[in-house]
Amino acid sequence: MSHTTKNKAKLLARVRRMKGQLAAMETALEAGAPCHEILNMAASVRGAMTGLTAELIEDHIRGHVANPETDPDPERAKGAGELIDVIRTYLR
Amino acid sequence: MSHTTKNKAKLLARVRRMKGQLAAMETALEAGAPCHEILNMAASVRGAMTGLTAELIEDHIRGHVANPETDPDPERAKGAGELIDVIRTYLR
Amino acid sequence: MSHTTKNKAKLLARVRRMKGQLAAMETALEAGAPCHEILNMAASVRGAMTGLTAELIEDHIRGHVANPETDPDPERAKGAGELIDVIRTYLR
Amino acid sequence: MSHTTKNKAKLLARVRRMKGQLAAMETALEAGAPCHEILNMAASVRGAMTGLTAELIEDHIRGHVANPETDPDPERAKGAGELIDVIRTYLR
Repeated sequence: MSHTTKNKAKLLARVRRMKGQLAAMETALEAGAPCHEILNMAASVRGAMTGLTAELIEDHIRGHVANPETDPDPERAKGAGELIDVIRTYLR
Repeated sequence: MSHTTKNKAKLLARVRRMKGQLAAMETALEAGAPCHEILNMAASVRGAMTGLTAELIEDHIRGHVANPETDPDPERAKGAGELIDVIRTYLR
Repeated sequence: MSHTTKNKAKLLARVRRMKGQLAAMETALEAGAPCHEILNMAASVRGAMTGLTAELIEDHIRGHVANPETDPDPERAKGAGELIDVIRTYLR
Repeated sequence: MSHTTKNKAKLLARVRRMKGQLAAMETALEAGAPCHEILNMAASVRGAMTGLTAELIEDHIRGHVANPETDPDPERAKGAGELIDVIRTYLR
């Protein structure tokens, strides 16, 4: 996964943070925490997962399809830049 | 969280499964797995999180707002049933 | 739909605005507008639809299930308020 | 928008169907239809909009970035195919 090697440390940190959030959810469930607390935890992990997925899609486009900054074909560079913009907007 | 006590074991099992999925993502990232594998893992965890959040919202409605099966007010029972239906459809 | 009567004018205005956005998309498609413009229009209508659906769900909770501000049962009022909070956060 | 010319009639039909759904929502709102009917209409239009956006993104990838079936670069063709797969799964 060469194209994410540079981001690897950052991605790993995000995945580990989410694992920590799920561990906190597990503890809260076991301790009988109020329902809305569990619910807010779940909504928060889902939001984080959405953000991570959007970033992985962007990384994939740049690394394995076309990089808007470096692609030698100007049409494809433009198309890839527009694609990344819409992914960012759409998968907020 | 009395209303989820009966579902507690099931919810815990789902949270633990997702923790396992994130641990697998972590291992895959560390091992330099292909980008699209990581991406599919992320999309899969997000889907599981969406399903879990929808179920927690439904549990919250039944346990803390109004249960369509047992609420003594027929109007409210109907409204709660319609609400649960739309949550299920909307948050697939 | 008594509970939305007060909001009726506002809801109608939002639905009509979206109809206008779809009419603009139709014109753009017919005129052969650039693909990414059509795409951004679609993403924008979807965002507006998400916001409208979230507001309709909130209206339904207040009008047909439980209103956090006026429900005589404090437990149910609290539960309904928490539910509305999570719907707002979740369906941004 | 050459790449969607072939799909233009199909896309136009989908946009017009959604305009019809919004017109039906407008009529229902004006007529004071039950809240949950309006809500289900909104959720249904949003679902249709999600599907249309996903298809437009796929069209954009094939037409302006890389077509997995015809791209001369096998690595890029593979990357574009994986990207389309994840968009389809993710934006159900």
